[in-house]
Amino acid sequence: MRILVLGGDGYLGWPQALYLSQKGHEVAVFDNLARRQFDLRHGFDSLVPIQTLHRRIACWQELAGREIVHYHGDTRDYPALSHAFQEFEPEVAVHYAEQRAAPYSMIDREHAVETQDNNVIGTLNVLYAIKDFAPGCHLVKLGTMGEYGTPNIDIEEGFIEIEYKGRKDVLPYPKQPGSFYHLSKVHDSHNIMFACKIWGIRSTDLNQGIVYGADTYETELHPDLATRFDYDQVYGTALNRFCVQAAVGFPLTIYGRGGQTRGYINIKDTMRCIELAALSEPAEGEYRVFNQITERFSINDVAAMVHRVGTAMGLTVEMNTLPNPRVEAEEHYYNAVHTKLMDLGLEPHLLADAVIERMITLAQEYRDRVDTRLILPTVDWREVENHVEPVESLAVAGD
Amino acid sequence: MRILVLGGDGYLGWPQALYLSQKGHEVAVFDNLARRQFDLRHGFDSLVPIQTLHRRIACWQELAGREIVHYHGDTRDYPALSHAFQEFEPEVAVHYAEQRAAPYSMIDREHAVETQDNNVIGTLNVLYAIKDFAPGCHLVKLGTMGEYGTPNIDIEEGFIEIEYKGRKDVLPYPKQPGSFYHLSKVHDSHNIMFACKIWGIRSTDLNQGIVYGADTYETELHPDLATRFDYDQVYGTALNRFCVQAAVGFPLTIYGRGGQTRGYINIKDTMRCIELAALSEPAEGEYRVFNQITERFSINDVAAMVHRVGTAMGLTVEMNTLPNPRVEAEEHYYNAVHTKLMDLGLEPHLLADAVIERMITLAQEYRDRVDTRLILPTVDWREVENHVEPVESLAVAGD
Repeated sequence: MRILVLGGDGYLGWPQALYLSQKGHEVAVFDNLARRQFDLRHGFDSLVPIQTLHRRIACWQELAGREIVHYHGDTRDYPALSHAFQEFEPEVAVHYAEQRAAPYSMIDREHAVETQDNNVIGTLNVLYAIKDFAPGCHLVKLGTMGEYGTPNIDIEEGFIEIEYKGRKDVLPYPKQPGSFYHLSKVHDSHNIMFACKIWGIRSTDLNQGIVYGADTYETELHPDLATRFDYDQVYGTALNRFCVQAAVGFPLTIYGRGGQTRGYINIKDTMRCIELAALSEPAEGEYRVFNQITERFSINDVAAMVHRVGTAMGLTVEMNTLPNPRVEAEEHYYNAVHTKLMDLGLEPHLLADAVIERMITLAQEYRDRVDTRLILPTVDWREVENHVEPVESLAVAGD
Repeated sequence: MRILVLGGDGYLGWPQALYLSQKGHEVAVFDNLARRQFDLRHGFDSLVPIQTLHRRIACWQELAGREIVHYHGDTRDYPALSHAFQEFEPEVAVHYAEQRAAPYSMIDREHAVETQDNNVIGTLNVLYAIKDFAPGCHLVKLGTMGEYGTPNIDIEEGFIEIEYKGRKDVLPYPKQPGSFYHLSKVHDSHNIMFACKIWGIRSTDLNQGIVYGADTYETELHPDLATRFDYDQVYGTALNRFCVQAAVGFPLTIYGRGGQTRGYINIKDTMRCIELAALSEPAEGEYRVFNQITERFSINDVAAMVHRVGTAMGLTVEMNTLPNPRVEAEEHYYNAVHTKLMDLGLEPHLLADAVIERMITLAQEYRDRVDTRLILPTVDWREVENHVEPVESLAVAGD
């Protein structure tokens, strides 16, 4: 198939492009390099060194003999986006081209607006590009499990049958997202569902959990193929961040009581889930939702695992409970259904000690690249100050 | 109270400013005149002549001896918005400053993007302005009943208690909006609910039905105080449009089978609902939703009423069933709860024949101003053409 990976330079987008290319698909990436620009602007960096997108693509060409077509562009720039759809004529568009960090969206007004503008308007443009230039194209969209929040009833996959006052309907699952980032994904979901209904677009909306892991079978083939690995307070997700903290002797940063429970998934399974979604095309006009997780853990579970594995490796792993910078329930019911991708054939890589050990070892290897000032949270959900210079306040926060 | 009416030059915003001023409140309006600019650009015009905002305000000053403070600005322009909040220090912000027509949002990509950008980003800015500069300010936000769509169960006021697999929770009511405009309001609702939760903002989200009527007690005091009255395919709502059609001998434009049932409200009740919401302040951090309707009718009901009243007035009223340009159910269950505003003291002006007669008479008075080319629908939800020049295609559509 011809598959266009929007956001194909990111943590997941890049290994996804490799994975799909390796499987024999014709692959193009479309990226505005926004993620790299954030690093430049705020003084952050990937733990693992990454090459330019041009070098990555060239390395893959040399190694695998397969071309990855490269479009530089922003989803908000409709002529640029249209050009990619018109020229490449994708049968599947995998949409990773969104600002993807909750803390980023909570830095201040500008970052909230940037996140919702980029994600919502960008996705609107993707929908129009499909309608206008690739009507049969299947949109595989990355959403997040965070769209659901933590309701006191079971979380279903996108829709729920409600029986109410003697009547019944199957309705979109009620959402309670917990940041302007998560909200942007909820807005996307509503927009996509509507576009499928009125224009007959086919779409799979993947509510992905917290992804962990540093590499895939393809990125391991050559150092120049490595994907980014973030450990900072803004882009570092819980398990990845804890492994780096353990490696460099920084106490694990547990927010609040640590009972916050979420669905998790190994980066290798993310690769496979997108392929499974792409291979099983929805009907014309169908909008379907898969919950893309394989296990669930609380923050305390995750910290305990890292502590156990780190200790076995001879490290001294301390736990540090911090005031929760987020506004979220720290003890709650959490039971999310996630059977649809399993039914399609997903065989999960479950979280084993070896996975954690691999990440800690990697962090030890690159420990000189760790800037511990970037670990402690400074972005506070309740913050009522009007940041005039968010850049500086972020960069020196860990001092 | 000091009340800032965002969008205070519009169909509802202007009479709202008058109403609140008449009741003794200190009132300011903030408007970018976008609605008038749309008319200029597309060749539309209000049936009833309206004065400039400056003239309106001066007229009210002369007539009532009361000042309405005037801010010219766009909600997307944060410095302009902040200035109004900082200087006027509102205790209540009534938020009408949104692109308000479903067909407008469905013209093409640019109009969809403009609608969601204006409404979602504008409202994000309003939330930040309250947090930054008027933390106690109560946000009274105009949403729409169209956020709910037409579910097969009763529509509650914003939230629904769901019992599912032996567990219970009260969750946001699942939404199925039917245009990019309606979607923008759903996005707003989610953003506002979240801002209330994290920052303690107080907000009332009013899911308003279809408003009909041409005047209020205040606008009737002087011709220069008149508010706009739209009958065109983009901004004219069903009942208002039908009355004009009856007056000028144009067949009533019924979309599809006409079973589409919605909640309706008289413009005079809208005025009162906002006051009732403002007078009953929510608690800190409370996000509450009222369904702002008083009656429900199907399109066929509304057409039949206009037919009956018009015929009694000696007019020949024809019915014309058109292919539905929208994607919506034409026969469906519809039962929307709307008790909260009644509990606060709303005494509805129900739809009586006299109200319809008044609107038809008004349209007869201004029949020379009716451009029948603007009545027939040209904006089609399913339209797959890429409009390069939507302006022209709209303007000549009725030929």
